[in-house]
Amino acid sequence: MAGGGGGGGGGEELKLLGHWGSGFALRVRLALYLKGVHYSYVEEDLRNKSDLLLRCNPVHKSVPVLIHNGRPICESQIILQYIDETPFFSGSGSTCTLLPADPHERAVARFWAAYVDNEIGAPWDKAFRAGTEEERAEWMGKVAAAVPSLERGLSECTDGGRNGCFFGGAGGVGYVDVVLGGVAPYVHAMEKVSGLRLFDGEKTPLLAAWLERFGELEVARAVLPDVDRVVGYVRMIHAKNTAKAAAE
Amino acid sequence: MAGGGGGGGGGEELKLLGHWGSGFALRVRLALYLKGVHYSYVEEDLRNKSDLLLRCNPVHKSVPVLIHNGRPICESQIILQYIDETPFFSGSGSTCTLLPADPHERAVARFWAAYVDNEIGAPWDKAFRAGTEEERAEWMGKVAAAVPSLERGLSECTDGGRNGCFFGGAGGVGYVDVVLGGVAPYVHAMEKVSGLRLFDGEKTPLLAAWLERFGELEVARAVLPDVDRVVGYVRMIHAKNTAKAAAE
Repeated sequence: MAGGGGGGGGGEELKLLGHWGSGFALRVRLALYLKGVHYSYVEEDLRNKSDLLLRCNPVHKSVPVLIHNGRPICESQIILQYIDETPFFSGSGSTCTLLPADPHERAVARFWAAYVDNEIGAPWDKAFRAGTEEERAEWMGKVAAAVPSLERGLSECTDGGRNGCFFGGAGGVGYVDVVLGGVAPYVHAMEKVSGLRLFDGEKTPLLAAWLERFGELEVARAVLPDVDRVVGYVRMIHAKNTAKAAAE
Repeated sequence: MAGGGGGGGGGEELKLLGHWGSGFALRVRLALYLKGVHYSYVEEDLRNKSDLLLRCNPVHKSVPVLIHNGRPICESQIILQYIDETPFFSGSGSTCTLLPADPHERAVARFWAAYVDNEIGAPWDKAFRAGTEEERAEWMGKVAAAVPSLERGLSECTDGGRNGCFFGGAGGVGYVDVVLGGVAPYVHAMEKVSGLRLFDGEKTPLLAAWLERFGELEVARAVLPDVDRVVGYVRMIHAKNTAKAAAE
């Protein structure tokens, strides 16, 4: 299966091991689309992982893994930075850079990207794995509690919304947008699954606008899965973990 | 208090908010020493944090924070990359770079540095905060279980020890070494506190050699605290958290 739009170099071998529902893998697909490079995509069965995945990521055994000319790169944010730092990915006519050139702006972007992983993604993952509705609600409460700080971060990056609506500020979609972009379908899905509106127009207007505008981008429409499919996936995982906990 | 050895630029203002016992702050001090830049160091009282710290790191309220010409940078690994990417820090005659130039080697270094934080540092922090000896032992068991993979990582980076003894391989001390370097005093201290030899000469000979050789470096002798002081600190924290848990 071919990835993004544009160019890509001759003789380079690029393969992504992913899973359609993995927010981490979706980030990488967003970035590769923005860079306009072609790659082969391998959908992993996470209940029966391929030998290639286990060989390429023996430590975490998780997607995404990007394999560039036979050499694996693991961990989504590390892959994004690899894509941004390797000349091949800028050689296809794309002028998109994820991290800005200024070192302090790079640090700010890395800060908010780490925040998304540690304060939003980590408790969300615990909610995903929880065995009871109460436990899930408790972890999702932690996710919700972390959102207002992210709103302040977006406000800083966009000068209160005067400088565009993305974390990349005047530069448009950037590193943090791609990192958060993988989460976007789940933000929508949670509203349908449990009524939880994480990026609320009244409480966090900049993030609510971000969610809408990000979803309208060509890259998002091309890469991100349909929300209803995510809703079904979330319900299936919740049901499986509830049954598993009840049986223990 | 002045930091590292060499140069430093004129008219630049550089301040580090740290704590002598913070492995995260120690990383930054190791890096600044290696870069040979002067800076002013502010020791924070973590029970009574300064207004400057709270203003500079309102999200996490934690050390280290590097303040460069009035602009704060938070989170130790983000600070290390800022130091590595900002021309000022290489302008003092130091030829030390933390991350290698090759994008794939950079990805490998970032992978192992993240591994140190997530698989070693995170459970260690839980052990530190635990209220009972059993709970502490359980978390330290997770730390110990994560060490063999790190040994394999060091083996890859050094070609089984044929290419030096540091994660920086032929380049000598690099990014992962500095990240792990902040943990080194605690590896020694745990042996005295609880008899746990995390980097064992028989089970993980490369890490055991790393620990010894890293400790012999001028930068380690200049920056890292005395092990006995760390032992006292660890015992004090354990006693405080045990008493707190017993009172709850």
